[in-house]
Amino acid sequence: MDKKRVVLAYSGGLDTSIILKWLKLEGYSVVAYIADVGQDDDFAEAERRAKTIGADSVHVCDLQRELVTDYVFPALAGGAIYEGRYLLGTSLARPIIAKRQVEIAFEEGAGCVGHGATGKGNDQVRFELAYAALGPRLEIVAPWKMPKFLEQFQGRRDMIHFAEEHGIEIPVTLEKSFSTDENIMHKSYESGVLEDPMHAPDKDMFTVCVDPTDAPDKVTTIEIEFKDALPIRVKNLEDGHEETDPLALFTYLNEIGGKNGVGRIDIVENRFVGIKSRGVYETPGGTILHVALRDLEGIAMDKEVKRLRDVLAPEYAAIIYNGFWFSPEMEFLSGALKQSQKLIDGVVRLQLYKGNATPVGRYSPSSLYNEELSSMDVAGGFDQTDSRGFIRINSLRLKAHRLIVRTQGQDES
Amino acid sequence: MDKKRVVLAYSGGLDTSIILKWLKLEGYSVVAYIADVGQDDDFAEAERRAKTIGADSVHVCDLQRELVTDYVFPALAGGAIYEGRYLLGTSLARPIIAKRQVEIAFEEGAGCVGHGATGKGNDQVRFELAYAALGPRLEIVAPWKMPKFLEQFQGRRDMIHFAEEHGIEIPVTLEKSFSTDENIMHKSYESGVLEDPMHAPDKDMFTVCVDPTDAPDKVTTIEIEFKDALPIRVKNLEDGHEETDPLALFTYLNEIGGKNGVGRIDIVENRFVGIKSRGVYETPGGTILHVALRDLEGIAMDKEVKRLRDVLAPEYAAIIYNGFWFSPEMEFLSGALKQSQKLIDGVVRLQLYKGNATPVGRYSPSSLYNEELSSMDVAGGFDQTDSRGFIRINSLRLKAHRLIVRTQGQDES
Amino acid sequence: MDKKRVVLAYSGGLDTSIILKWLKLEGYSVVAYIADVGQDDDFAEAERRAKTIGADSVHVCDLQRELVTDYVFPALAGGAIYEGRYLLGTSLARPIIAKRQVEIAFEEGAGCVGHGATGKGNDQVRFELAYAALGPRLEIVAPWKMPKFLEQFQGRRDMIHFAEEHGIEIPVTLEKSFSTDENIMHKSYESGVLEDPMHAPDKDMFTVCVDPTDAPDKVTTIEIEFKDALPIRVKNLEDGHEETDPLALFTYLNEIGGKNGVGRIDIVENRFVGIKSRGVYETPGGTILHVALRDLEGIAMDKEVKRLRDVLAPEYAAIIYNGFWFSPEMEFLSGALKQSQKLIDGVVRLQLYKGNATPVGRYSPSSLYNEELSSMDVAGGFDQTDSRGFIRINSLRLKAHRLIVRTQGQDES
Amino acid sequence: MDKKRVVLAYSGGLDTSIILKWLKLEGYSVVAYIADVGQDDDFAEAERRAKTIGADSVHVCDLQRELVTDYVFPALAGGAIYEGRYLLGTSLARPIIAKRQVEIAFEEGAGCVGHGATGKGNDQVRFELAYAALGPRLEIVAPWKMPKFLEQFQGRRDMIHFAEEHGIEIPVTLEKSFSTDENIMHKSYESGVLEDPMHAPDKDMFTVCVDPTDAPDKVTTIEIEFKDALPIRVKNLEDGHEETDPLALFTYLNEIGGKNGVGRIDIVENRFVGIKSRGVYETPGGTILHVALRDLEGIAMDKEVKRLRDVLAPEYAAIIYNGFWFSPEMEFLSGALKQSQKLIDGVVRLQLYKGNATPVGRYSPSSLYNEELSSMDVAGGFDQTDSRGFIRINSLRLKAHRLIVRTQGQDES
Repeated sequence: MDKKRVVLAYSGGLDTSIILKWLKLEGYSVVAYIADVGQDDDFAEAERRAKTIGADSVHVCDLQRELVTDYVFPALAGGAIYEGRYLLGTSLARPIIAKRQVEIAFEEGAGCVGHGATGKGNDQVRFELAYAALGPRLEIVAPWKMPKFLEQFQGRRDMIHFAEEHGIEIPVTLEKSFSTDENIMHKSYESGVLEDPMHAPDKDMFTVCVDPTDAPDKVTTIEIEFKDALPIRVKNLEDGHEETDPLALFTYLNEIGGKNGVGRIDIVENRFVGIKSRGVYETPGGTILHVALRDLEGIAMDKEVKRLRDVLAPEYAAIIYNGFWFSPEMEFLSGALKQSQKLIDGVVRLQLYKGNATPVGRYSPSSLYNEELSSMDVAGGFDQTDSRGFIRINSLRLKAHRLIVRTQGQDES
Repeated sequence: MDKKRVVLAYSGGLDTSIILKWLKLEGYSVVAYIADVGQDDDFAEAERRAKTIGADSVHVCDLQRELVTDYVFPALAGGAIYEGRYLLGTSLARPIIAKRQVEIAFEEGAGCVGHGATGKGNDQVRFELAYAALGPRLEIVAPWKMPKFLEQFQGRRDMIHFAEEHGIEIPVTLEKSFSTDENIMHKSYESGVLEDPMHAPDKDMFTVCVDPTDAPDKVTTIEIEFKDALPIRVKNLEDGHEETDPLALFTYLNEIGGKNGVGRIDIVENRFVGIKSRGVYETPGGTILHVALRDLEGIAMDKEVKRLRDVLAPEYAAIIYNGFWFSPEMEFLSGALKQSQKLIDGVVRLQLYKGNATPVGRYSPSSLYNEELSSMDVAGGFDQTDSRGFIRINSLRLKAHRLIVRTQGQDES
Repeated sequence: MDKKRVVLAYSGGLDTSIILKWLKLEGYSVVAYIADVGQDDDFAEAERRAKTIGADSVHVCDLQRELVTDYVFPALAGGAIYEGRYLLGTSLARPIIAKRQVEIAFEEGAGCVGHGATGKGNDQVRFELAYAALGPRLEIVAPWKMPKFLEQFQGRRDMIHFAEEHGIEIPVTLEKSFSTDENIMHKSYESGVLEDPMHAPDKDMFTVCVDPTDAPDKVTTIEIEFKDALPIRVKNLEDGHEETDPLALFTYLNEIGGKNGVGRIDIVENRFVGIKSRGVYETPGGTILHVALRDLEGIAMDKEVKRLRDVLAPEYAAIIYNGFWFSPEMEFLSGALKQSQKLIDGVVRLQLYKGNATPVGRYSPSSLYNEELSSMDVAGGFDQTDSRGFIRINSLRLKAHRLIVRTQGQDES
Repeated sequence: MDKKRVVLAYSGGLDTSIILKWLKLEGYSVVAYIADVGQDDDFAEAERRAKTIGADSVHVCDLQRELVTDYVFPALAGGAIYEGRYLLGTSLARPIIAKRQVEIAFEEGAGCVGHGATGKGNDQVRFELAYAALGPRLEIVAPWKMPKFLEQFQGRRDMIHFAEEHGIEIPVTLEKSFSTDENIMHKSYESGVLEDPMHAPDKDMFTVCVDPTDAPDKVTTIEIEFKDALPIRVKNLEDGHEETDPLALFTYLNEIGGKNGVGRIDIVENRFVGIKSRGVYETPGGTILHVALRDLEGIAMDKEVKRLRDVLAPEYAAIIYNGFWFSPEMEFLSGALKQSQKLIDGVVRLQLYKGNATPVGRYSPSSLYNEELSSMDVAGGFDQTDSRGFIRINSLRLKAHRLIVRTQGQDES
């Protein structure tokens, strides 16, 4: 294991290009690692750039399918939604990126793994906790937390100067007034002008979903079929289009979701490092699946299982958000969640329309729903007089409580 | 306390009219109690009908304001949403109806309280648990669980026959293919044709919200101001219309929400009595407030308080749904919830548009959000190098876990 | 399936003997089912008695080993302790008794299962929920809730009269001033004189444990070895006695625990049916294992897993106490619990002495405990300066909170 | 506010004496702050020593009463017990020490607060989080995390050398093979020889409780009276001795508890900083109150309140253990806990005997316990036939589940 060999998560952008060069100057041998998680990047160009700057070797890894099947789908099945609103798009991509990076470190005999995430965000935590969990003996190189690096690069100007000095191409893209992160599940927008939580984003900031006001005037009805809480088929009832392959299915949901303006949120969230942060997210396919799964659970999940699952759901989401994907507590919760997903089978019919994804029908072969039972007119197996005892027994402690409160003079009734 | 005097929750409809008459025939003196919780009823007509049938006295009580301020607003502030989707419109009206009913029993010296809810639903439970909690010595008369009544009325035909026999007017309204419940917070639709969970409701079933496809093509932007998580002002930014009175404010939110198709859901839920039931709900104002409050919490609520509150939220919603509004556990949770609502102050700006209620801006004078802190460019009070220690200490047990798992041969890496 | 054939849980005592006869008189064919769960009974005598009274067939089933391995050990491993104090001895025996009973019903083609538990206790619930879960189409015959039976037997006198009339032997045992239930895990005492919660039980009531004041004056030190949170070896360090078979091991722990007065509690608990009830329990072996397991978890269980497990523990205990052993929520929790028990391996050394079972040492091969790490003198892998960043980041929101509270004038400091 | 003036938590021991001197040499003006939380120290001697070394001023503050009434009693009432075993003796003293220290900083115009806790323990976290919460603008001086200090003092030898050089008296007490912390609630022992979790502590290490084997051969019976879950009277039934003042009462419980060997535990716990640590604790009075309160809750606390409280209890204990006593989440939980403590009134009778504190009787004027209700012989207000409906309704979803599982072929029965 070479202590001066580092696998660097490399994006092709200015920051990681500078870090690559800086690490070389610091005497590291650098393995540039480019993870394709579905972002809209030119990976060949990034690879070329890494080599130009001096990467000793370059790995470009397509992680899209694995991201969808092993991270996105299980998280959605488990009801993971951070603080009740955020579907964790970035949080889900970080562990898989880190996992492959650690594998490359093992393959390449590198003793270090590095990234270009800043010291104030969630991503540094997610990367580094995953490194620690999977490669506990690897050293972590995080320049944005290294005094020497911070001293050298005190502002954008220092970076541009360094780039020019070392012949690093500076991307010609317009300086954006916010920063983004993208993968197959979502695109996030934050910082810059978005830091004012009262400042609504411009309509032209968004690239994934159309604005609801620009979406088609016609409802698009789709059906999604699930097996054990995993989507196995999507069908567009308007045109009959159907997808069954996980990656194709998810990509298609992103497409029709985005077309109908579904899945955009604008929130202030609590970062793990104790800061509140404003984020805007576009998650079309994930939003549709989230809505459909919760609807299917209504008909197919046992009441008490749902109650307990819902109590655990905030913990589950926080584990993912905070970067503990590879952790004993994740294994613990997964044991229960997998159990709860058995028999979550069936079809949900949804209407997509100008920002809405609305369930309008659902069917489950393993449904606990019984039309006979729930009918108001037909008694079926339900003896109404049973309710009397049920209620009376549930009343006992309420009566006792009232009588005591009265006796103790804390009540006037 | 007269053991043969009953305060009957009376709606003016066929069922409770028959029950009123039947109770008279059974020898009860009957106090008809008509609760105005905002449903679209003719209360004067109902009063007249009760008297005609033979009510010994009639009470018509306007409970709308109290329902909004003491039940709807606190529940929304506490984040009560049953099974993650249902805002509990019916559940919130039941305890206040029962509370006034018990008070009337005390005033009238009646030993019994009665209702016309069936033996399979949630409402019987909610009524009777509230009766037990507030009037533990009152006897409950629930004909739909009394063998004698059930034997006499085995079907609709028996009821019509009885009505005709005793000169009870049969409402001329068309026999509906579903049943509804309405109050100022929502209108519910269930049973009948809706029992098939795959059967989408007809567009013309709905009376509260327009269909999103029929809503205005233009976005309506509003601002809601909160103090301690209670709404104190609503302003329509399009026309400057403003409301500050709780009842007027809530009524106005219902109006603009309904106009924009906001707040309609179609779900299968778990009743307390162990049955799954399909319900369709329209909750325009409640939905807008729910969305706005969760958004304001993002900026104004402490992270750990939010985490704990979210763990308790399913319990809180279930307490309300199951009918335990007046209970020791409700007092217990309320103690914490009230604490969490202090300083949830500020303004949320929302766009209403064809079914969507989307927060696009928020401001809080007591915000824990600090633009400086969360900015990526300005270090402010946040020392990025602190993150190193934070992450390293959070990594410790993950590293230990991996090393043990390896040692124990349960891992190949 | 014979609708008039019932498998009756039969104890040989007066109550179930009367029920057996009464069912015969009601026209049932009766299969007497005698479950040996470790209680101090004469099963041959009970079998003889059942035949004499008229049982059509008799099954005597030794369930002790299965009770220990499939119910007692998993419950202890999962930390099940109702209301923080009761180790669920009776609750654990009910499901296995019911399970075998349902199997016999299937084998014998019986359409009914019956029991002699009263209508106020937990046991009726536990039996009947297990019947429902395992034999949903079986009819339940519970005479103590049948109006006809209740009318016939309004007091002890009626029962004795019926017994004499039908030649049923009345056990000559002295009328006890309390009632008991016993199995291999524990013996319970309740009702009668114990109903006064201020009345301490007489010393001579107890039959399982000696009174701590009568226990040996010398400490007995034992070691228990666990694998995946299950006990696999007990060794008495005083005399070298060792047991490894689950049943023998548990029986031995009962013996030495009882001899040292370990495992007696006297509590008021909340029954599922809403009544508070005073119970006195003796659970020597279970108490020792509970104490030892919690101690081993200290050294071998991950901190966050423990935190989440402890949040779920009251739910787990309530599921068992309330009779939902065979339920979807039990499967849900078990999924997580099993995960948490992996690697809970090692040895706990305990001192038994006059009512105490005190851990004084523990060792785990898969321990997350690292003497180096936790030492105060040796820095090991722990960099003390990391704590600075850790604390500072944890402080951020506390500082923000205080500054806001001050600004809002809710604080004077 | 003087940036170079520090209020130092000073114990009189070698470490904080060296820190005091070192801070003076670093140019600080030092306010020595000696907190009397009940530890067995010579405060006058410590004050003298501080002055000799050069403290600019000295504050000796008796915090015992406030510690008992505002920290220990509320924590016990709330059921705080970390990881199910540790009553948090040290954790409860830290916030009050820090609170007074911050107040002194405000009084003295000091801009800094300092302590001598190491960088690996919980205490540094507890002190510093409390400083941050109460004095968010104060600077924290923690030499054991300062590189300059750490470099100067790399071992015990450096400290002794420094002390000799600067005329600091070195306490003549024997070098102990473990370290301790003491306050009115407990004494803790850790590190040194105790780091081996299999090494049982020597009998002569303990100074608070006698060894159970050395305790009196006779049972001591006491009664404790509570009002709103706070102890208001202790009576020794053997000799009639009675205490009602909070401090006197708690001191007396420590005395008779210690005399009877009650309250000693030996555990491995999870520190907040991710390390497992072995600790031995003696908490006589706290243990007795904990046991008595849980017993009183059995009879006086509502079942559902208890269930929810028990779910929150691990969170409550962790908040205290981790040092978040002054935090929004503490205020949140306290809101609920206070509610749950209303009407927890009554008397608990306990037997103290050779390490045991065993409740044998309890009475509550506000008891929810009703002898009539829970009696097996007298039906009272409980209609046994109500149980039928109660159980049948609870069975519904279990039956549905089984039937579905069968249909789906996942079950053979």
